Amino acid sequence: MASYHKPDEKTLQCLRDTANKLRIHSVKATCASNSGHPSSCCSAADIMSVLFFHTMKYKAADPRNAHNDRFILSKGHAAPILYGAWAEAGYIKEADLLNLRKIDSDLEGHPTPKLAFVDVATGSLGQGLGAACGMAYTGKHFDKASYRVYCMIGDGECAEGSVWEAMAFASFYKLDNLVAIFDVNRLGQSEPAPLQHDLEMYRKRCEAFGWNTYVVDGHNVEELCKALWQAQQVKGKPTAVVAKTYKGKGLKGIEDADNWHGKPIPKDKVEGLLADLKKAIETNKPLSPECPVEDAPNVNITSVAMPSPPGYKLGEKVSTRRAYGDALAKLGKASDRVVALDGDTKNSTFSETFKKAHPDRYIECFIAEQNMVSVAIGCATRDRTIAFASTFAAFFSRAYDQIRMGAISQTNVNLCGSHCGVSIGEDGPSQMALEDLAMFRAIPTCTVFYPSDAVSMEKAVEISANTKGICFIRSSRPDTAVLYSPDEKFEVGQAKVVRKSDHDTVTVIGAGVTLHEALAAADLLAKEGKHIRVIDPFTIKPLDAETILSNAKATGGRIITVEDHYKEGGLGEAVCSAVAEEPDILVQMLAVTQVPRSGKPTELLDLYGISAKCIVAAVRSTFAN
Amino acid sequence: MASYHKPDEKTLQCLRDTANKLRIHSVKATCASNSGHPSSCCSAADIMSVLFFHTMKYKAADPRNAHNDRFILSKGHAAPILYGAWAEAGYIKEADLLNLRKIDSDLEGHPTPKLAFVDVATGSLGQGLGAACGMAYTGKHFDKASYRVYCMIGDGECAEGSVWEAMAFASFYKLDNLVAIFDVNRLGQSEPAPLQHDLEMYRKRCEAFGWNTYVVDGHNVEELCKALWQAQQVKGKPTAVVAKTYKGKGLKGIEDADNWHGKPIPKDKVEGLLADLKKAIETNKPLSPECPVEDAPNVNITSVAMPSPPGYKLGEKVSTRRAYGDALAKLGKASDRVVALDGDTKNSTFSETFKKAHPDRYIECFIAEQNMVSVAIGCATRDRTIAFASTFAAFFSRAYDQIRMGAISQTNVNLCGSHCGVSIGEDGPSQMALEDLAMFRAIPTCTVFYPSDAVSMEKAVEISANTKGICFIRSSRPDTAVLYSPDEKFEVGQAKVVRKSDHDTVTVIGAGVTLHEALAAADLLAKEGKHIRVIDPFTIKPLDAETILSNAKATGGRIITVEDHYKEGGLGEAVCSAVAEEPDILVQMLAVTQVPRSGKPTELLDLYGISAKCIVAAVRSTFAN
Repeated sequence: MASYHKPDEKTLQCLRDTANKLRIHSVKATCASNSGHPSSCCSAADIMSVLFFHTMKYKAADPRNAHNDRFILSKGHAAPILYGAWAEAGYIKEADLLNLRKIDSDLEGHPTPKLAFVDVATGSLGQGLGAACGMAYTGKHFDKASYRVYCMIGDGECAEGSVWEAMAFASFYKLDNLVAIFDVNRLGQSEPAPLQHDLEMYRKRCEAFGWNTYVVDGHNVEELCKALWQAQQVKGKPTAVVAKTYKGKGLKGIEDADNWHGKPIPKDKVEGLLADLKKAIETNKPLSPECPVEDAPNVNITSVAMPSPPGYKLGEKVSTRRAYGDALAKLGKASDRVVALDGDTKNSTFSETFKKAHPDRYIECFIAEQNMVSVAIGCATRDRTIAFASTFAAFFSRAYDQIRMGAISQTNVNLCGSHCGVSIGEDGPSQMALEDLAMFRAIPTCTVFYPSDAVSMEKAVEISANTKGICFIRSSRPDTAVLYSPDEKFEVGQAKVVRKSDHDTVTVIGAGVTLHEALAAADLLAKEGKHIRVIDPFTIKPLDAETILSNAKATGGRIITVEDHYKEGGLGEAVCSAVAEEPDILVQMLAVTQVPRSGKPTELLDLYGISAKCIVAAVRSTFAN
Repeated sequence: MASYHKPDEKTLQCLRDTANKLRIHSVKATCASNSGHPSSCCSAADIMSVLFFHTMKYKAADPRNAHNDRFILSKGHAAPILYGAWAEAGYIKEADLLNLRKIDSDLEGHPTPKLAFVDVATGSLGQGLGAACGMAYTGKHFDKASYRVYCMIGDGECAEGSVWEAMAFASFYKLDNLVAIFDVNRLGQSEPAPLQHDLEMYRKRCEAFGWNTYVVDGHNVEELCKALWQAQQVKGKPTAVVAKTYKGKGLKGIEDADNWHGKPIPKDKVEGLLADLKKAIETNKPLSPECPVEDAPNVNITSVAMPSPPGYKLGEKVSTRRAYGDALAKLGKASDRVVALDGDTKNSTFSETFKKAHPDRYIECFIAEQNMVSVAIGCATRDRTIAFASTFAAFFSRAYDQIRMGAISQTNVNLCGSHCGVSIGEDGPSQMALEDLAMFRAIPTCTVFYPSDAVSMEKAVEISANTKGICFIRSSRPDTAVLYSPDEKFEVGQAKVVRKSDHDTVTVIGAGVTLHEALAAADLLAKEGKHIRVIDPFTIKPLDAETILSNAKATGGRIITVEDHYKEGGLGEAVCSAVAEEPDILVQMLAVTQVPRSGKPTELLDLYGISAKCIVAAVRSTFAN
């Protein structure tokens, strides 16, 4: 084992001085913006100095270089000190720091990947470590590279369960390339954090969650240098550095005092406090980070294509969830950067088909959906992987904040939610996703796929892999007939007219099981001489407004939507929205309107008004008007 | 300290026998339904027997009695054994167990409060303990009663961070009336749980999170009796009983074997296995639970009214978030069962106004929104309290699964989300709620309030306290003018026409800041002789379709909606949905359509197209058509 060499006193003083420079930047920037969190920056200043100018290896001129060590500021409200560190590293102009939070500056209130040195947006607390786990897992298992991952976490955010999901994950997978630094500054936003300065309790919790743990004085740069060096030597465990710090450290009258969260320094105090900080600076030597080892592989994740067309036969009964697993396993052959994650539902979502084909590229995330999504987002940073994460669609609601933040993070992660709607049957409402379309439609970067057969599912998986932003794929439990031939072309925002005659008097739009119910309704109605047009939207967002409108106009302006989802925010409202500015289009929505119950799938489709029978009744009443 | 008396051998045998009866019920019921989780029931059988027939004190004929000990089955998929226990207790007819999961039976796949012995629905894992915390906090601090709270947790669900949020909460608040029993049966759904049978690791984690902890053989009824007795003696700490169990215990060939999750016993095995279980039963003495101490106070939470009318003056500038705090503090005077919770944002949401007025009824939940919502739901069970929980509206996305399950739980909890939309300004997108209306609208039991001034906020708080189901109140950061006089009447689903003339040619619907922007637009347009009608919907769900329609018809069928929210699932789509079946109504939606950025509130309203200026432009282009 290598032995530790204490940095020379000059280096240590430079690190102390850099910490104070970072404090100065943070105070000045937040004064300029008249908002922000200088006290939260000051507690972290010594840690940031040591990380950025002693421990981490990176090319400061190329922050997103694949070989660089990664840094995630989980306590995103300390953004000004991150910006300050990159100014000291030479990547940002010092003068730009004073544009903090301005509308024309990318130095926003909380970090986002508009800045090349930010991989994931933070600001909703407790999410950084999960993403860091994804990066560390990728570094260790997929890239097999030397880069290491550092994550700074506030003490307040340790109350978030997502932190402990990530702690359990990191030790389970022995992520010894991952270091979490806890900035334990004692004070939260509105009162002290629950554990205050009980550092031993933090140690116990970290150790119980399987981490190699050091408790240090977070304002002692030498202790920090040593702990972070030791972390590099440890094999088989991630390292936690629990740093005792003071909020507002270095700011007289503010340090360790209540009521200074998220407040810039008042004008009458600022000059004096800046003078104190400047006085403490003894050196003026600029520090440079060490260069990284360049051993991350070159990776190209663009234009990934399925190796062969879909192998399903028309009319064959295959659930779209099963087709998801088949498609993902197949896509995995096309690119070795396709990876899959699941939360102990792989035998239900069929991601286990991928696992069987590519065991080294499957990450079991256990029953921790928040962390699964964060890990997937982490895996997908810097375009290292094409990540697909799956669980029951209902359980993505557990990770909605992570998904929301994923959009701000500009992530390209793909999420497949199975077991949508009442059509799952007996398991009952807790397992039924009935709000997932509303959830994912309200994510601005999200493409929402709702394939209705195995062929379109395979296409959805292939397209998702090549689509920017978040992709959500909704899969269904029941076996349904294959509708499309293997050579059918699919595109985002392009609907299919699956039933059409010259005598159609209403356009029915369904997806998944309800598309099949609509087709069954069409058959029933045809027997009584009534004809309906049936549309499969393929993507719910973007929705193919043009196809819907032209067909609606050809069928007397009448649309019926039918969906295995609540009425709010789903397919029906998407259609209403698409036709809102068009005169003479009437939309009737069939959807689930109350908390459902256990029962057989077919019974439930009837009970909640979305079965073929209900569509027939709706069409008849339309005809009656 | 009382000394422990080991139960006599006959009692122990009865408990063992009852455990096997519960196994038999579970196997039979899941065979009858041909689905369900018998193996997950069998691991828990001895624990259930001891809890229900030795430890817990309750009136079996009156499961929801206020004095009863509470039981929460966090591992909700073991529902059949819960139903079996209540059959053994005499509340359910044994024959009814065979109706498990049928559409006309309330014995659903996972427990819901349709059953009087279920306080909160479970089935989305990791949520039971948070609700149990709310019940235990209520028992200890609000009811000051003897009843105790027991929660059974599966080992797989311990990966959920929400469990650890609850663990931290319970020890912080010294909930010594709370016992968590971990059924560590080693096997998850698709593979072993991460810690398998590492009981010592569970012990370490529980102890590190501040719990008094016992590790026991979960199939040894005597050990269970003793640990649960000891738990009753411990002061100042909650108790964890970590029970080593085997999945499928008692079922030969299935016990501790892979691939038996969620599968009924095959027909060719069932008779033999049932015979084995029956053979093990030695006694036939029915066991009865001990009666509870009757010391919970009588509580009436109906018809709670504000003690005085709103004290605001027309035109006065007050943010609706500040008015929320004022209103809640005032409501707290009307009923001592009004309680408030927050997640370390009380100085931003203004729930601190309540805390200052009623410190004993405020629960600080720290930065753990999932647990906060679960605790609130727990507090509100059995109508013990009227609970209001608040945080930034964006951070309720963290608890969306808990909220979704809350609807299934039939909870009446009230949630207030502050800092909605881009109008918060410089903090940037991570802090802006832009999907909360979509989220909450898609909760079937939810009433969504979006008050636009201080008076209507006060009314919203009062109405929420008296409204069944979940109430969500959206509050805003900026100060805005008081629009309504103190005697204005407000009702759910009743909009207000706030600007009207005989010459209006378009109806503009806004809420919160955008209502004020609409009024400013009306003033600007009036100067050029153009008149618009302006509507304040008050509740977004239910939406006052009648008022909107009649006014739209009076203004040429033209509606413009304007909202500080994404376009999907918000006010605009709610309006589209409401008018979908009406001919000749056109809706133009102004809403945020991309991930926003930091900036000044007024700059952002302009940039994202929802300011008075943008409304004026939209109206002008409408006039131009």
